[in-house]
Amino acid sequence: MDTQIEKHLLFYREYLNKLVVFNDEEWNVFKQYLRLKTLKKKEYFTCAGEICKEVGLIIAGSARYYFVKNGEEITNYFCLDAEFVSSYKSFLRQEPSQASIQVLEDTLLITFSNKAVKQLLDNPVTAYKMERFGRLIAEYLICCYEERVQSFVTQTPEERYATLLNCNSPLLQRIPQHYLANYLGITPVSLSRIRKRIFEPVK
Amino acid sequence: MDTQIEKHLLFYREYLNKLVVFNDEEWNVFKQYLRLKTLKKKEYFTCAGEICKEVGLIIAGSARYYFVKNGEEITNYFCLDAEFVSSYKSFLRQEPSQASIQVLEDTLLITFSNKAVKQLLDNPVTAYKMERFGRLIAEYLICCYEERVQSFVTQTPEERYATLLNCNSPLLQRIPQHYLANYLGITPVSLSRIRKRIFEPVK
Repeated sequence: MDTQIEKHLLFYREYLNKLVVFNDEEWNVFKQYLRLKTLKKKEYFTCAGEICKEVGLIIAGSARYYFVKNGEEITNYFCLDAEFVSSYKSFLRQEPSQASIQVLEDTLLITFSNKAVKQLLDNPVTAYKMERFGRLIAEYLICCYEERVQSFVTQTPEERYATLLNCNSPLLQRIPQHYLANYLGITPVSLSRIRKRIFEPVK
Repeated sequence: MDTQIEKHLLFYREYLNKLVVFNDEEWNVFKQYLRLKTLKKKEYFTCAGEICKEVGLIIAGSARYYFVKNGEEITNYFCLDAEFVSSYKSFLRQEPSQASIQVLEDTLLITFSNKAVKQLLDNPVTAYKMERFGRLIAEYLICCYEERVQSFVTQTPEERYATLLNCNSPLLQRIPQHYLANYLGITPVSLSRIRKRIFEPVK
């Protein structure tokens, strides 16, 4: 196999080790279902209205989730390197996605399909570990969603921005300001004002 | 065993069958970890600042989730009969809960603890089915959270209320209006106005 692909698969396996450790027999079955995928800046991982067929791990790159309402895009979430990306409800239920997922730069991913998951769950070699992998990734996502729901319910845009600052999030360096503003539910001008207020030296 | 408890456990097992079928051997181990719990109206399933130790299935009753911000309660979610209830991130990570969960009427639940889950995942008799149960319940919750995030991001309070109406949700009959208004992020007076607009006969 191509050394470049082997290197990415090794990264993938090491990344998964944080969640669940596959032994060599299990891994050799699992990796047959993994696909390398490259998307050019502004291409789509998922389009609203279509079924999201894959879950990807971003090896290098970034993506943004958005909804369209009355012709306006509303940015809802970002994913960076070493994060899983998918329109999960669409993927899990194989129904049309409400969100679109667009990559913000040239992006390299390793993906698996819904069909692959079904086969791996049915294969006696991988069944137990795939259940565990599925549980742990889903539980991780629940924690992320709870944080987002809490943030929507209890925080103002300025507080949400301050939270991002406190986390020293790479989002702030990597994501164009107009998408960040859109994510916070404010105009780019309002974001500039907030940034000015926060960063202005105390007199 | 008490027939009343047996009846509730049977309901629980039948409910779980929609997710995952436990055989008799597995079920006999699992049910030893289940506890019947009764809470009087306005008692708490989880208090903010404390670790949520259990996941409950509501046999009869209802609960509301809320955050407190600047001394004000912000209602975030409701659970009715035959729904799982927990402050999941707190339960999964065994860290203090951000939300409080208060029952809205006298409520009967069947619960299991975080410690029970760990033991059931370690027990060879139940390990595989518990992984599967954990995966499926977590995936179900992901779909619920996605719907909530989308609703927060794309819908006005009036649209969110209309969605509840379209679902013919029992929430509308069961939940006091002031909590519904709080959930929609509006005053009870605004909710009355919305109801009037929606239900007023076309002239």
